[in-house]
Amino acid sequence: MLTLAYTTLALLVTITARTIPDNYNQERRALLAEETLTSVGGKQKLNDEETRANEILMKLKTNELNASYFNPQHFNFSKHYFSYKKDIEKSRVYQIIRSMPKGAVLHVHSSLMLHPDILVKLTYEEYLYACYTHDSIKLQFSKATPARPCANKWALVSELRNNSSDPNAFDAHLRDYFTLYRENEDYDYVDINTVWKRFNKVYYAIKSLITYRPVREKYWYETLKQFYNDNVMYIEVRSGLPDLYELDGTKHGKRYLVELYKNGTDKFIEEHPDFIGIKLILTRDRAQSINHVLEAINVTRQLKAEMPDLIAGFDLVGQEDLGRPLSDFIPILSEAKEEINLYLHAGETAWLGTSTDENLVDAILLGSKRIGHGYALTKHPSLMSALIKKDIALEVNVISNVVLSLVHDVRNHPLATYLALGLPVVLSSDDPGAWSAEPLSHDFFVAFMGVASKRADLRMLKQLAINSIVYSALEEDRKSRLFAVFYDRWDRFIKDVISNESYRDLEVS
Amino acid sequence: MLTLAYTTLALLVTITARTIPDNYNQERRALLAEETLTSVGGKQKLNDEETRANEILMKLKTNELNASYFNPQHFNFSKHYFSYKKDIEKSRVYQIIRSMPKGAVLHVHSSLMLHPDILVKLTYEEYLYACYTHDSIKLQFSKATPARPCANKWALVSELRNNSSDPNAFDAHLRDYFTLYRENEDYDYVDINTVWKRFNKVYYAIKSLITYRPVREKYWYETLKQFYNDNVMYIEVRSGLPDLYELDGTKHGKRYLVELYKNGTDKFIEEHPDFIGIKLILTRDRAQSINHVLEAINVTRQLKAEMPDLIAGFDLVGQEDLGRPLSDFIPILSEAKEEINLYLHAGETAWLGTSTDENLVDAILLGSKRIGHGYALTKHPSLMSALIKKDIALEVNVISNVVLSLVHDVRNHPLATYLALGLPVVLSSDDPGAWSAEPLSHDFFVAFMGVASKRADLRMLKQLAINSIVYSALEEDRKSRLFAVFYDRWDRFIKDVISNESYRDLEVS
Repeated sequence: MLTLAYTTLALLVTITARTIPDNYNQERRALLAEETLTSVGGKQKLNDEETRANEILMKLKTNELNASYFNPQHFNFSKHYFSYKKDIEKSRVYQIIRSMPKGAVLHVHSSLMLHPDILVKLTYEEYLYACYTHDSIKLQFSKATPARPCANKWALVSELRNNSSDPNAFDAHLRDYFTLYRENEDYDYVDINTVWKRFNKVYYAIKSLITYRPVREKYWYETLKQFYNDNVMYIEVRSGLPDLYELDGTKHGKRYLVELYKNGTDKFIEEHPDFIGIKLILTRDRAQSINHVLEAINVTRQLKAEMPDLIAGFDLVGQEDLGRPLSDFIPILSEAKEEINLYLHAGETAWLGTSTDENLVDAILLGSKRIGHGYALTKHPSLMSALIKKDIALEVNVISNVVLSLVHDVRNHPLATYLALGLPVVLSSDDPGAWSAEPLSHDFFVAFMGVASKRADLRMLKQLAINSIVYSALEEDRKSRLFAVFYDRWDRFIKDVISNESYRDLEVS
Repeated sequence: MLTLAYTTLALLVTITARTIPDNYNQERRALLAEETLTSVGGKQKLNDEETRANEILMKLKTNELNASYFNPQHFNFSKHYFSYKKDIEKSRVYQIIRSMPKGAVLHVHSSLMLHPDILVKLTYEEYLYACYTHDSIKLQFSKATPARPCANKWALVSELRNNSSDPNAFDAHLRDYFTLYRENEDYDYVDINTVWKRFNKVYYAIKSLITYRPVREKYWYETLKQFYNDNVMYIEVRSGLPDLYELDGTKHGKRYLVELYKNGTDKFIEEHPDFIGIKLILTRDRAQSINHVLEAINVTRQLKAEMPDLIAGFDLVGQEDLGRPLSDFIPILSEAKEEINLYLHAGETAWLGTSTDENLVDAILLGSKRIGHGYALTKHPSLMSALIKKDIALEVNVISNVVLSLVHDVRNHPLATYLALGLPVVLSSDDPGAWSAEPLSHDFFVAFMGVASKRADLRMLKQLAINSIVYSALEEDRKSRLFAVFYDRWDRFIKDVISNESYRDLEVS
């Protein structure tokens, strides 16, 4: 039976039809169109000008991606953010994203918002003492040598700088304490606990600089300026309200910092009337005791009663894996939510089936208005359904998740799935200062080029900006004003893109 | 209004209720139970003995995971497979998985199934010549020095070995050409193109050894023995049916290799009557021309007509990003599928919105019976729905995806989502020989400990084994026999676990 030579048999067989079957391409297009329609931005309709701007954007995006697709070792977004950070400015897509109005930032921690270059400038203030150890720095403003213990010895920063052979090198060295970013290092994997230890050192260094009241005022003004210049018109800021101090040692309580935020922001708005403002989400470290958290909830409740426009709600912060699970706080959080909106971190973890992962269950059952990160959510179909049903937004921070060791290649970031499913996503930046990122543009850029589909276009970007307004805690009148400012800036942005001479070479129709 | 001191205010506020609200825990349990029920294995009912075995398994799993959760730098599964491969044997969970009947392997490439230690033994055959270059090896059996060109020079392996100062070191060096695995290296990221180049070198080295007919016969017997010993009772093998040769230079056509597989397997079944057998999925490299692929389809059609029990269907292989997209082959594949079942690789990529990614659309529209890898599927909700509706199984190969640079930390592997969604998943191992893995146990172990939920238990493992039988290409009678063999072995496996003295220390109820 098997004796006839194979080659002869093959010749006996002929296939004649060589055409694509009827309906095949139609079905194929329908499936792809369904996916686009489902995805974030898929239902956005672009007007003629937006369509032209989108053609330019997509031509640039396709060119840049094609150049790297053929050379995957050059596809930077799959590598650690630090390895390509300094090259981002060269991207023409980035230039468009930078100038694009982005609406609001809804997930950012107050002490870690400002670029370390500006933090270094703030160390030029008088009376600043530093206590260096091999891998950390403690700062304090004082007329005399600080009384607090120092493992090494306290020294005036101004004197150290003046006595250094190279003040620029001195400042560069100082800056390294304020950021995890290193330009010329190998960005190997570090486990999540190790990177959080480094991250906490950066946090304490910065905190020791900006708890001095005069510096905090400048810090806040510079922070608002950076976000405004990055086309962010409204910010919801998570803050634990640390005590501030004066040169003479006077301490200010939590309310003082709230007023400082308010006054500083009001002043900024006077100078920049299209900036809408801020709200605060007050926080406590999740590693602390239930009584401490209860105390912070009570503070939030009180301050919110007095300043309902300024206080958006409450959250628990800190490394989620090592802190207490939300389930420890259910009695106090479920009572608190009757008066205070919750904006809970949950599922900022790669573990599945652990207490950190199951914080997602509690965040949803506790009625969290949005969820911070929700990194683990794609592994929980029932929770995704609940999220959609309750219209809970996800605050996604891609670069943060890379730097804090949840994911290396951002193509594996769950945001790709959230975008495809059309979940209520807002992009944010968590702690852009702590890794020397732009306030929001870097996160938008990485999400657009590295995470989202090659096909994702201006409609997705616009929807993400709109989501940040829709899911903000703003009352209706300010939300309308933010929308008005956004659309006004959006129209100008579109006109700028389509009239920009430098895109003539693209030969877009 | 803001004058009253904050601390005083905080004291005025009291929260009295400190209990978990009614229904909260009930709702929480219901959500988690729903997720378990939805997930792969969630509907499996365990009998009393299985329940006891499951308690032992889960006690071991929890102990091993808790030890690493508290030390994430020790959570090996998040690191490259090569960094913990040699430690796997130490795991007590692994010992159970190793002894567990696993049903079938449905996605494996014929030349890359056997452990390199055995390949080295096959180089002890007479008349083997080697041509070494700095990073590759070409082998050929010949009575005289091979006529084929060699960049260096042809030499008899037996002479090289005898003349070497250390034959063990010689063999270890030789083995390195047959595997990507290196025990003492740093497993940094390499981009997908670089790793595929290395992988192809391993493939060509092995291929040059096993196209010699006498060696291929031994290769096949040893391969079946390894899979059988790993508790795999049926295999669907992808093969391009390369020509074999004899010492005198005689060449055998494709049919010869089919018969060799058949006769070798029949002989193995005689000695191991509970081994069910194999089927072949014939393949062609997707980088080749449409005419070459058509030729391979015609061969498949012909051989299937003659040996319908042996030939399961057809597939296209090779690095998907660099090969032709399925859309190039629609006319010939859509005609072929009327006669031949397709088992297509699709979406073995981290790119989104590219032609490789959209191979998933075509694989589904072309009626592929299963999908090889489908790595990109979580980013395609419409395609996931279509997959469920059409009951198309996903052949998932976690370790392969790590070694071939799709994902580093397996907690980010999409299998976690597939398992949670209860998709029709089968676990397979792709090319276990090419990375010195056990035939299937390593993949089951990594999936169970590193990818699946901490809560996933024996029900998931059992369902995965059952899936491999359900979604096999077996005709009904052999499928029933495979089920019978599986359940018989399963019962013995359960009894062995619960009667094993070494688990007495676990104090399981």
